[in-house]
Amino acid sequence: MNAPIAFLGLGRMGLPMALRLLAAGFPLRAWNRSEAARTALAAAAPADARLQLCATADAAVAGTGLVITMLSDGPALRALLFGSAPGPGVLALAAPQATLCDMSSIPPTMAREHAEWLSAAGFGALDAPVSGGVVGARDGTLAIMAGGAPQLLARHAAPLAVLGRVTHVGPAGAGQLAKLANQVIVGITIGAVAEALLLAARGGADPAAVRAAIRGGFAESRILELHGARMLIDDFVPGGAVQTQLKDLATALDEARAAGLDLPITGLLRSLFAAARDHGDAALDHAALLRELARHNGLAPDGVLHAAG
Amino acid sequence: MNAPIAFLGLGRMGLPMALRLLAAGFPLRAWNRSEAARTALAAAAPADARLQLCATADAAVAGTGLVITMLSDGPALRALLFGSAPGPGVLALAAPQATLCDMSSIPPTMAREHAEWLSAAGFGALDAPVSGGVVGARDGTLAIMAGGAPQLLARHAAPLAVLGRVTHVGPAGAGQLAKLANQVIVGITIGAVAEALLLAARGGADPAAVRAAIRGGFAESRILELHGARMLIDDFVPGGAVQTQLKDLATALDEARAAGLDLPITGLLRSLFAAARDHGDAALDHAALLRELARHNGLAPDGVLHAAG
Repeated sequence: MNAPIAFLGLGRMGLPMALRLLAAGFPLRAWNRSEAARTALAAAAPADARLQLCATADAAVAGTGLVITMLSDGPALRALLFGSAPGPGVLALAAPQATLCDMSSIPPTMAREHAEWLSAAGFGALDAPVSGGVVGARDGTLAIMAGGAPQLLARHAAPLAVLGRVTHVGPAGAGQLAKLANQVIVGITIGAVAEALLLAARGGADPAAVRAAIRGGFAESRILELHGARMLIDDFVPGGAVQTQLKDLATALDEARAAGLDLPITGLLRSLFAAARDHGDAALDHAALLRELARHNGLAPDGVLHAAG
Repeated sequence: MNAPIAFLGLGRMGLPMALRLLAAGFPLRAWNRSEAARTALAAAAPADARLQLCATADAAVAGTGLVITMLSDGPALRALLFGSAPGPGVLALAAPQATLCDMSSIPPTMAREHAEWLSAAGFGALDAPVSGGVVGARDGTLAIMAGGAPQLLARHAAPLAVLGRVTHVGPAGAGQLAKLANQVIVGITIGAVAEALLLAARGGADPAAVRAAIRGGFAESRILELHGARMLIDDFVPGGAVQTQLKDLATALDEARAAGLDLPITGLLRSLFAAARDHGDAALDHAALLRELARHNGLAPDGVLHAAG
């Protein structure tokens, strides 16, 4: 029988990930700040003897050899695991040489600090953020970008393989950096598709037909497929929200600056997503950048791809 | 037996397209400015009675019902077909009600003018530029973006289907507009991938592993697949050249301006590709935008994804 895993954070992503681990036979000690999510997990895995719901993170971590975290952001993770001071934090309650595998998306700088603190206390650390959304979490098809020692990653390969496709991308913090690289591409590509469809529509072509025509060529992308379709029908229910995209681009630019880099395109997209937020679209799907480009041109943002001519 | 088609322009794209039409049983009257390309076509289709090589465009067009053009740009097309004055130009030699199907990439404004001139003289016009490169031309898998009257497109569906997947995207000029939308996405997505890989490499991750990790997720694109791979190994043999990408983005911005649109991301990419040209990379593949971003950051452009640390 597998050793129990502590699983902290049962939100939109964490809940389906926890369910996959349970279904694959891994005993879980699961915790979430709100009781509602704990109840949701219990309801989704009724009478599963491998599931132990815990009222505190301390209780979930106690004695385990692997602590998986899936929290909303860096400050939430740090507050929960480490409180206000450097050190092993909650991991001090885990088994000797236990590993933190943080699958949240947090700044690489924070991930590197956590790895240092844990290493100094004899614990291991992996930063392993994911891409693929709720569908990927449910189906076990997440892209998992892992930073940290390769031996550590190998030791915990089995549970991670249940969650998705794992790629080792470098030392501590590199997983978070890969996630930022991913978000840079996503944010800019949304801008590319939005400008292209706006040009097509306002120039007198049928934007839906243009999208169909260019699918499968050099312009093909998941963003053209998914977010392009959203733009055509004004479907901006998230998905990934404008405010999350904005946060990720800001973190990417922070990290770039620390590495001595200016990234002009990422910088421009950060400004455009910030304008979208300022104009009230923070909670919409990031495909709503199209609406900001409409406003930028003095056009009404609703149905801009249909109002041309 | 099919009626002969005039095929003007036997360059990198035109030659394999002409060969596909011949192989599919369409008799061709083929012409190219340089005799070398005519000889190359004759060598590739030896003893094919359906092929008639012509020494002039006039001779190729005479009496045909469909004239397909695949030339380098708008000015070349206009000079060949129309000379200096509005009117039917060379099409006056074709059969009554003949159709020009221009598959070159030219400005939408020019395509609309050609359609007007030809229509006034009783001829038809389709603008049907393509995406998919030499490989798509050879395999008959081009994305063909067609503007013009749907009935006209239907009439000439058979030869076009031999060349690729045809999508009607709107009235005259809409095909060229779709091609520009395609190029806007391609140019910006190259920028997205270049900034992301630069961030990964300079931030201390393995850029090749990062690319592998994010493949198949929301960041997936043909550009990440093909141009991302080029960037990792400094392979900037074109492919699509920086100068062509720059020309297309400039035309897209002209067309946007005419439609009352400002496209800030496309504008930034135009500036970046112009800087790449100014720094001597005009003839390199457009993936060489990575080199310009390196220079922008005071880094040596050669092997910038390997020189980190």
